[in-house]
Amino acid sequence: MTAPIGLRVSDLDTPAIVIDLEIMERNLRKLADYGREHDLRVRPHTKTHKIPALARKQIDLGAAGLTVAKVGEAEVMLSAGPPELLVAYPIVGRKKLNRLMEVARKTSVTVSLDSLFVARQLSDAAREAQIEIGILAEVDVGLGRVGVAPGEALLQLIQGIDRLPRLRFEGIAFYPGMIRSLDEEGEEALKRLAQMLEGILRDLRRAGFQPKIVSGGSTPTLFHSHELPGLNEIRPGTYIFNDRNTVLAGAASLEECAASIHVTVVSTSKPGQMIIDGGSKTFSSDRQAAGSEVSFGHVLDAPEAVFTKMNEEHGFVELRRATAQFSVGDRVRIIPNHICVAMNLHETVYGVRGDVVEQVWRVEGRGKLQ
Amino acid sequence: MTAPIGLRVSDLDTPAIVIDLEIMERNLRKLADYGREHDLRVRPHTKTHKIPALARKQIDLGAAGLTVAKVGEAEVMLSAGPPELLVAYPIVGRKKLNRLMEVARKTSVTVSLDSLFVARQLSDAAREAQIEIGILAEVDVGLGRVGVAPGEALLQLIQGIDRLPRLRFEGIAFYPGMIRSLDEEGEEALKRLAQMLEGILRDLRRAGFQPKIVSGGSTPTLFHSHELPGLNEIRPGTYIFNDRNTVLAGAASLEECAASIHVTVVSTSKPGQMIIDGGSKTFSSDRQAAGSEVSFGHVLDAPEAVFTKMNEEHGFVELRRATAQFSVGDRVRIIPNHICVAMNLHETVYGVRGDVVEQVWRVEGRGKLQ
Repeated sequence: MTAPIGLRVSDLDTPAIVIDLEIMERNLRKLADYGREHDLRVRPHTKTHKIPALARKQIDLGAAGLTVAKVGEAEVMLSAGPPELLVAYPIVGRKKLNRLMEVARKTSVTVSLDSLFVARQLSDAAREAQIEIGILAEVDVGLGRVGVAPGEALLQLIQGIDRLPRLRFEGIAFYPGMIRSLDEEGEEALKRLAQMLEGILRDLRRAGFQPKIVSGGSTPTLFHSHELPGLNEIRPGTYIFNDRNTVLAGAASLEECAASIHVTVVSTSKPGQMIIDGGSKTFSSDRQAAGSEVSFGHVLDAPEAVFTKMNEEHGFVELRRATAQFSVGDRVRIIPNHICVAMNLHETVYGVRGDVVEQVWRVEGRGKLQ
Repeated sequence: MTAPIGLRVSDLDTPAIVIDLEIMERNLRKLADYGREHDLRVRPHTKTHKIPALARKQIDLGAAGLTVAKVGEAEVMLSAGPPELLVAYPIVGRKKLNRLMEVARKTSVTVSLDSLFVARQLSDAAREAQIEIGILAEVDVGLGRVGVAPGEALLQLIQGIDRLPRLRFEGIAFYPGMIRSLDEEGEEALKRLAQMLEGILRDLRRAGFQPKIVSGGSTPTLFHSHELPGLNEIRPGTYIFNDRNTVLAGAASLEECAASIHVTVVSTSKPGQMIIDGGSKTFSSDRQAAGSEVSFGHVLDAPEAVFTKMNEEHGFVELRRATAQFSVGDRVRIIPNHICVAMNLHETVYGVRGDVVEQVWRVEGRGKLQ
């Protein structure tokens, strides 16, 4: 929604998530260019922003479709008019499957899954609804979360999918979430992943399967996706905003962080510390993914400050090493550790250009747990 | 809201927060009895449930008023018809103050604060609105969050409040959040707190101030509140449901935990582990407050299981030591570490008696950040 004319950033009450539109637009273009340059399909994961208007921008910049984790998110993202939707989560249970079929009447739907149990339920629902559903077989490349092991288990899964009515085997999906940062260790892990992927694709071809889609990658590996042989689709989420964890992973600079959370100092009673009006209900209690000194965010207005602790409504910011001084009532901008979970906690976020609030967005996909 | 007739727990899709009404009612009565027995005013903190219908139950059981942390929560809780509302948070900034004055036109409002800056802003707003606001001076008894130090700082704060128009000094408030559990160390800390409190009240009397309200306590110390000399008000929150952290703190038993989160197994690809359809977006990433083995919840259907890790939509449950076996599609009930933050993540929760869903409650106070 366009913001009321004349609304300034300083008019916004705190805590509030504020998006720098110029940085966001630059991030969106950078990824679109990268995808085009390396001939990679882009199916952005909308779990980061949860806003159909931003999903629409991604599509307009060339995204082939959108990725979601939950049926509830798929329902919300229909209003972005996606050419196709990937539900990158095993959908279990009749209620969710019925809702998914309703979504599939409106756009092409693909589901990633790792068990024949889930595939059979999906096939039954698709048969009843007389709809075809695309399937990506999820393979575990080392995170140990979802996904079958490469080799025999993957082959059996794909053969099973192939035999089930109304399911269209499209390819494989993986998520190398064990690579937390592209340091030396991460580079090594990326090389091993490339070899593993080659082996997987060779095995599949030998067994007579030619995956049309090979979908994978993660935030730290995003701009190295073209180094993975056979990979032809990425599902990036965080890149639209970036966050402190993206910076710590070496995958973005602070200048590429588009989202900050504006808070107000509410107490300075304890010397060397300030209490801000945002805690775990505003930032989430997600810790940093890499690095040794624990902080719950990067304080833009005092980079030496450490956001050491949180309760639900209180943020503890340690100021001993900070040069800036703060009083009760001051506003402070903080880049959160993990922007996706922070977005999930806010009803509304604001898009600004310079000091002017241009957009007021309802986070329509927040809290979609089912 | 009364649930549709015939709705069973097994009909609810997952993830879902399910409240055992019998346990909840027992918890509510236990606290009401405790307050009556020891002549303590009870002003329950509604941040735990965030539901006006449950706040109403607390009032009907004798609560003198309600406690909230944010103006947005105060606005929501007006519909419970509270005789009075305590906003236990320093309210900073004109926008919030204007909204607070609107609340104060509908019920008696008290604010706890720890700076004259906040007191002056409040006094200005109250003067303009021609409303009187009650004030509790927040004193820091060791947590180092909000609150002035006992002694000179507290005295100056109270003298300042006393001089400001339209503010009515009512007493003091404190939160001994540094006592995490009533083990030997905690018992010692509680004794020190009792001595400190005696000193604070003696100093205040000497200076000519007789606090009408002495408001304090925390979940681990709740049922020891009568041991604190001069204390005459408690603001308990978690007691209505309890959670794994309350149990680890020794302040409740597992049988007194009324809220569990029902989830579904979505993957068992990795041996000795299951993945459930609830992660940090469902449980919050709040860690356990005490104990050595880290788990994100107590798995009721497999007490030996360890909920080791979370991503936003994935929960990792380690099953090596569990005797129960699980398949994709199975439902599992988990008592979360911290129920307050979990409630904040759910749009709707369910009140059940046995297998029957009796109540469907919208979490009206969720996400009220401002």
